[in-house]
Amino acid sequence: MPDPFNQRLSRRAKGATSSAIREILKVANRPDIISFAGGLPAPEYFPIEAMRAAADRVLSTNGRAVLQYAATEGVPELREFIAAQINASEPHAPVTADNVMLTTGSQQSLDLVAKVLIDSGDRIAVENPSYLGALQAFRLFEATYDAVQMDDEGVDPDALRSALARQPKFGYLLPTFQNPTGKTMSAGRRAAVAEAFTENEVPLLEDDPYGAIYFDRPAGPSLRSLAPHLTLGLGTFSKTLAPGLRLGWVVGPASWVARLAQVKQSADLHTSTLSQHIALDVLRSGALEPHLDVLRAVYQERCQAMLDALAEHFPAGSRWTVPTGGMFVWVELPGGVDVAPLLPQIVAEEKVAYVPGAPFHPNGGGLNTMRLNFTHSPAEVVRDGVARLGKALSRALEATTA
Amino acid sequence: MPDPFNQRLSRRAKGATSSAIREILKVANRPDIISFAGGLPAPEYFPIEAMRAAADRVLSTNGRAVLQYAATEGVPELREFIAAQINASEPHAPVTADNVMLTTGSQQSLDLVAKVLIDSGDRIAVENPSYLGALQAFRLFEATYDAVQMDDEGVDPDALRSALARQPKFGYLLPTFQNPTGKTMSAGRRAAVAEAFTENEVPLLEDDPYGAIYFDRPAGPSLRSLAPHLTLGLGTFSKTLAPGLRLGWVVGPASWVARLAQVKQSADLHTSTLSQHIALDVLRSGALEPHLDVLRAVYQERCQAMLDALAEHFPAGSRWTVPTGGMFVWVELPGGVDVAPLLPQIVAEEKVAYVPGAPFHPNGGGLNTMRLNFTHSPAEVVRDGVARLGKALSRALEATTA
Repeated sequence: MPDPFNQRLSRRAKGATSSAIREILKVANRPDIISFAGGLPAPEYFPIEAMRAAADRVLSTNGRAVLQYAATEGVPELREFIAAQINASEPHAPVTADNVMLTTGSQQSLDLVAKVLIDSGDRIAVENPSYLGALQAFRLFEATYDAVQMDDEGVDPDALRSALARQPKFGYLLPTFQNPTGKTMSAGRRAAVAEAFTENEVPLLEDDPYGAIYFDRPAGPSLRSLAPHLTLGLGTFSKTLAPGLRLGWVVGPASWVARLAQVKQSADLHTSTLSQHIALDVLRSGALEPHLDVLRAVYQERCQAMLDALAEHFPAGSRWTVPTGGMFVWVELPGGVDVAPLLPQIVAEEKVAYVPGAPFHPNGGGLNTMRLNFTHSPAEVVRDGVARLGKALSRALEATTA
Repeated sequence: MPDPFNQRLSRRAKGATSSAIREILKVANRPDIISFAGGLPAPEYFPIEAMRAAADRVLSTNGRAVLQYAATEGVPELREFIAAQINASEPHAPVTADNVMLTTGSQQSLDLVAKVLIDSGDRIAVENPSYLGALQAFRLFEATYDAVQMDDEGVDPDALRSALARQPKFGYLLPTFQNPTGKTMSAGRRAAVAEAFTENEVPLLEDDPYGAIYFDRPAGPSLRSLAPHLTLGLGTFSKTLAPGLRLGWVVGPASWVARLAQVKQSADLHTSTLSQHIALDVLRSGALEPHLDVLRAVYQERCQAMLDALAEHFPAGSRWTVPTGGMFVWVELPGGVDVAPLLPQIVAEEKVAYVPGAPFHPNGGGLNTMRLNFTHSPAEVVRDGVARLGKALSRALEATTA
């Protein structure tokens, strides 16, 4: 008998296909696998004691408020704190608490923007490749993509200008330590990109989950600060404090933020009051900056270990990005090799996992690319895993060309 | 110059109107106002110390997992615990962890079901009146409503059978201490309702946020247990532990739950790992049952205070429900009085707030109804507030008939 639920799926749900990669990567979470696949922070560097002390303090001193329902837009003091931090680093484009809303991780910001802006068939301008979770969130609302080519400095300004002249619903960009490529826009590139949006009056969604985890110095100014009347900026505590809090924010024109709050109310009423108060307490304690200094040094070391091992062990003709922060290296293999079908065997035999790059390309292509995360394993494990992966890929390439 | 964001709103966002009531009720949160408007648990009875101890324990002993990304479906041990609890109370319709997914509050379950099932114009069968947050969540996906009449035992079985024969996308019911009316289906009514769904093979969304906070005895069997192959049950820790955790669950056929997990991944990746581990720890400690015994006694006392004060102070000809649990009394005023326009003045002059009942009626009507929450204030405050409200309403009625 036909299932009455499956018979009744919405058009958007019928279009949502389960990712085969997701199933493979569940295997990759086994402790005997070295996984470069996820985007996981190093758990051994979570600020556990700071979080424990914060949870203790906020529950002991303010338990009734910390456990109660809260405003959809977020805890006022946390909105103010985030606004003040933005103003301290970018005084040329000041904001107030009214410009800030807390969300249940940045992923929710993507969902809310999609709900508010996307009608079936609408075109979104995105980098090619772009963040898979965003592509999926927008696609659920039946978006189509104008995939704009990139060079070493990120999205190509001429190609972007052409795409924006076609008046997409909005543009979605990750200018800093991009997911999946690790690329970062220069200051000049940022200015050109902001100008292209301003010229065409197209709303810009700027996703910046990794900006705080630079290696040597912060990347250039945010696109939001260059085009504040056109930009919604997305931030998150997932990479700086901990992803388990599910705590992100959106910053932009107050009337846009109010629209997002309206649909957030239907989505989950508000974000965990407890998570918000714990984050606020840690931020106020001043524990975040020294913690970030540690993370920056650790991640830089792990990234360097990956780059060194890639040079030593990956097949001749491979190319990869050299990130200056963030969590990912992007690898392009030589020849026409498709890395997706190789994954199950490499996981099973070499106990190493990666993410094939093709799904990050919204309109196809990229079969010979892969994304490697360098933050989740210690440097010596990174080296070992890249060595094993490189050898397996070399064998596969030889088999193809033989 | 037209705003490029507002110019680009999706059709669904254009249809989402801001609630005027929501704005008034922001005022009602002031400490000098006695508010019967929200659905807030009594904060002075939050199990703060149990939560603080749990947060301390899970962060001290398991910090790396508690702060990391988690599976979209939820922390496995919590899924298992919830399944075991369901099986203990309803062994005739057993479930496993595969039937359970954690959500960011029950509100998220409503959003996910809407995404998976509702296309523009689809009809949903709901009680008249029904939970406003659900109506808004479904309406955002452009649902229409078949509003089914109720009697003192909840939804009318004959009217329901007719509605289901018209094959709506699904039915949405709150059989126990309903929001907004406080009504509860008898065992016989539950059987008739389950049979109506089974006869017509229509999926049923059973929302049960209040089942655990009965006064004397639990309500009858869940509709899920009577029609397990057709029902998604929604549960929450918001009324038993604390709403600030944003922690709910959905239970139903495993393939349905898997569909919801697919769209939950795009919505927020997963629900707060920390919230899930704190709840699991409190549940395992056995602290929940004695806490619920306290809540049941306190809420029963407050409910009785409200009922007594209604009898003493409300205008002659008023009618109200007599709940056996939950959080709300539903009042119907005599004559053709519209209670919504009276609200601003009553808030300003009497310092008492209520929710007008009209917005709970999906297709209009109910102008002379209001929902009163009895859980948020001590009994003497409830008495005082109802007295003030009753006098103000009596004056307004006299003015109308004069």
